[in-house]
Amino acid sequence: MKVAILTIGDELLIGQTIDTNASHIAKELNQIGVEIIGKQTVGDQANNIKESLTMLSSKADLIITTGGLGPTKDDITKEVISDYLGRPMIFNKEIFQLISDFFEQLGRKPTEAHRQQAYMPAGVELMHNKLGTAPGMWFTEEKNYFCHLPGVPYEMKILLHDHVIPKIRSIYDPIIVHRTLRTAGAGETQLADLIRDIENQLPEHLSIAYLPDLGTVRVRVTGRGASKDQVLNEVDQWFDKIKNILDHYVYGMEDESLSEALGNILRKKELKVGTAESCTGGYIAHQIVTPAGASDYYEGSIITYSYEAKTKQLKVKPEILLRYGAVSEETVRAMLEGLFDKMDIDVGLSVSGIAGPGGGTPDKPVGTIWIAYGSRNNIKTKKILASKERALNIKFTSNVAINLLRKFLLTDK
Amino acid sequence: MKVAILTIGDELLIGQTIDTNASHIAKELNQIGVEIIGKQTVGDQANNIKESLTMLSSKADLIITTGGLGPTKDDITKEVISDYLGRPMIFNKEIFQLISDFFEQLGRKPTEAHRQQAYMPAGVELMHNKLGTAPGMWFTEEKNYFCHLPGVPYEMKILLHDHVIPKIRSIYDPIIVHRTLRTAGAGETQLADLIRDIENQLPEHLSIAYLPDLGTVRVRVTGRGASKDQVLNEVDQWFDKIKNILDHYVYGMEDESLSEALGNILRKKELKVGTAESCTGGYIAHQIVTPAGASDYYEGSIITYSYEAKTKQLKVKPEILLRYGAVSEETVRAMLEGLFDKMDIDVGLSVSGIAGPGGGTPDKPVGTIWIAYGSRNNIKTKKILASKERALNIKFTSNVAINLLRKFLLTDK
Repeated sequence: MKVAILTIGDELLIGQTIDTNASHIAKELNQIGVEIIGKQTVGDQANNIKESLTMLSSKADLIITTGGLGPTKDDITKEVISDYLGRPMIFNKEIFQLISDFFEQLGRKPTEAHRQQAYMPAGVELMHNKLGTAPGMWFTEEKNYFCHLPGVPYEMKILLHDHVIPKIRSIYDPIIVHRTLRTAGAGETQLADLIRDIENQLPEHLSIAYLPDLGTVRVRVTGRGASKDQVLNEVDQWFDKIKNILDHYVYGMEDESLSEALGNILRKKELKVGTAESCTGGYIAHQIVTPAGASDYYEGSIITYSYEAKTKQLKVKPEILLRYGAVSEETVRAMLEGLFDKMDIDVGLSVSGIAGPGGGTPDKPVGTIWIAYGSRNNIKTKKILASKERALNIKFTSNVAINLLRKFLLTDK
Repeated sequence: MKVAILTIGDELLIGQTIDTNASHIAKELNQIGVEIIGKQTVGDQANNIKESLTMLSSKADLIITTGGLGPTKDDITKEVISDYLGRPMIFNKEIFQLISDFFEQLGRKPTEAHRQQAYMPAGVELMHNKLGTAPGMWFTEEKNYFCHLPGVPYEMKILLHDHVIPKIRSIYDPIIVHRTLRTAGAGETQLADLIRDIENQLPEHLSIAYLPDLGTVRVRVTGRGASKDQVLNEVDQWFDKIKNILDHYVYGMEDESLSEALGNILRKKELKVGTAESCTGGYIAHQIVTPAGASDYYEGSIITYSYEAKTKQLKVKPEILLRYGAVSEETVRAMLEGLFDKMDIDVGLSVSGIAGPGGGTPDKPVGTIWIAYGSRNNIKTKKILASKERALNIKFTSNVAINLLRKFLLTDK
């Protein structure tokens, strides 16, 4: 079964709202092995919606739309569908009752606009929306299925989960398998070079994709085929080969983030972590507490932006700052030592650098970052050069630092 | 000029990556008065890409694509375009030099894959990518323009800004004027209610858009017309009226962020700021140092996630934590007092709350956040309820806290 997704709404076209619905639907359907052949977005104009429906229904078996089912003037999807499929609108008592009940619950009365909402194209299969007034709609035509969901993300999600996915499964049971490696510390080409031979040997129905981000790359293996077990088997086989070769750079699988990977090790080892940050200004701490449950391993941080804060909060000796500068191996080491003295932590990291755009010098250009990491009795240091602009340098540095500490934990006893 | 956006990549179709590129491009082009007629997403298959190009070029003047320009095997956009437009691939020495230089800077050597990257379709206008190795491409055909950008968001953004928008403007430059107010502390409907009369009186060729984010709303006035001076004049006039009414909530204009607004006041008053954070885990500090030059006013922060960190680092009395809990007015006040005692700052803020998903109780549900802010001798407190999920609650809290301190500075002598 081939599926196309059509998201409807002017707000999506002018970039006022980022379209998370299409991604969510794609991800969920992908999980059950349905192939998404394309996504489109159109504005709230009947002609454009019909044109897209025509185009998509020539390529896809099922067309899922979101948006335009509400009670206001710009919500035209239902009328367009009625017209497009040649199914007249019929007043649906049951729906009107549901809408009336919904508003009664809120202590309000349904309006004429809500009465209009109870008109439905003939032959529709309705999907009850327990979070709002617009039900989902499903139509079975000769050559295609059409499914229409509201645009409000949480309403769409629950309808998709409770109704659309079971419905699709009752019609089709397809085969596509993805597995994703998450890597840090190597660039996209570096990874591709390492597995070039494998990629050249890969059977036609398998493919590899590289998804780079700041200091990290996801490597995804996808397989399609006729037998689920066979595809799973094949993907697993190639995936394991790739994993073995890239092992040094792999920090996790599937949806795991770098800070989750670090957190999982810390939790398992029952260690507490903290950070001493200068140029990253708390961003590393923020990353570490992003996963839910970070209180299991995160203790706290001391962010020292000025010389004075470094000497006063982290007891970095003024001589060190004077002699080597704030961006130096000696300073980050002293910062981390200071953090260990102050905070009840087992491992930690410290960072000082020039995030830019100002502050660079010929021997310490913008992007020069020193990182110290490790445990009280085993502090390591590393200098990196971030090469982008301020915000990205901070994020890149954070990823590198978290990965260094993660690798330290894996090798340190 | 009508523009269509085509985002390319299996990762977008399977929902592994949310497509922020299409929204960003739409938003930026909308600013310069270009109409977006549609967005599409296809996977990394030559046929699908070509089909979409054919379809879109029948409707749009300019087709912008993102993705598939990298050096790995799944990056096929360049070859597809070469084929689609009938322009053979030619080795480009200049590009190869640029790629080599880029890697030399990183202390690495270009590989065979990078050599392949230097082949370009004949007649291409290249757009230099200073953040990566894949340049943007522009083609002028008889009936359409084609523009191809890398899929890595930060590379795409800078190419769009530095090259694509100036290029479009050199071809098509409609008269469109935007002015944007930035507000915090009021919701979208609250603001709309305040300026309803104005909105009803607005001439046809002017419009108001509300762009809500977490705790902030941008209010944008847009005007179109035949004479630049006249439109500018009109927009200014209505903009000033709106600004007067919304004054209480306005923190800045155009691209100014909340932390820039705070920073500008601190710089002007020559004050130093610091934060004591629990549930936000350094995110507020990160926000404060995001603007370049934050060292003018940011001193440092103490992030205390655990009870122990709060008592040890910020000298919060254990009795306070025991009696009122970590999420309480008393605790955030004590945290801020502790920060003032430790750090050489004039103003500061502290936060403690339940970001979620766990940790809620009947009387302190997930999203309960206490904030303290002010100066050593004048500490204010406020309780808020963030109502979304963990990551959004942290960002919302950060915006509210920064805005509270900003308003404090405006009224405090």
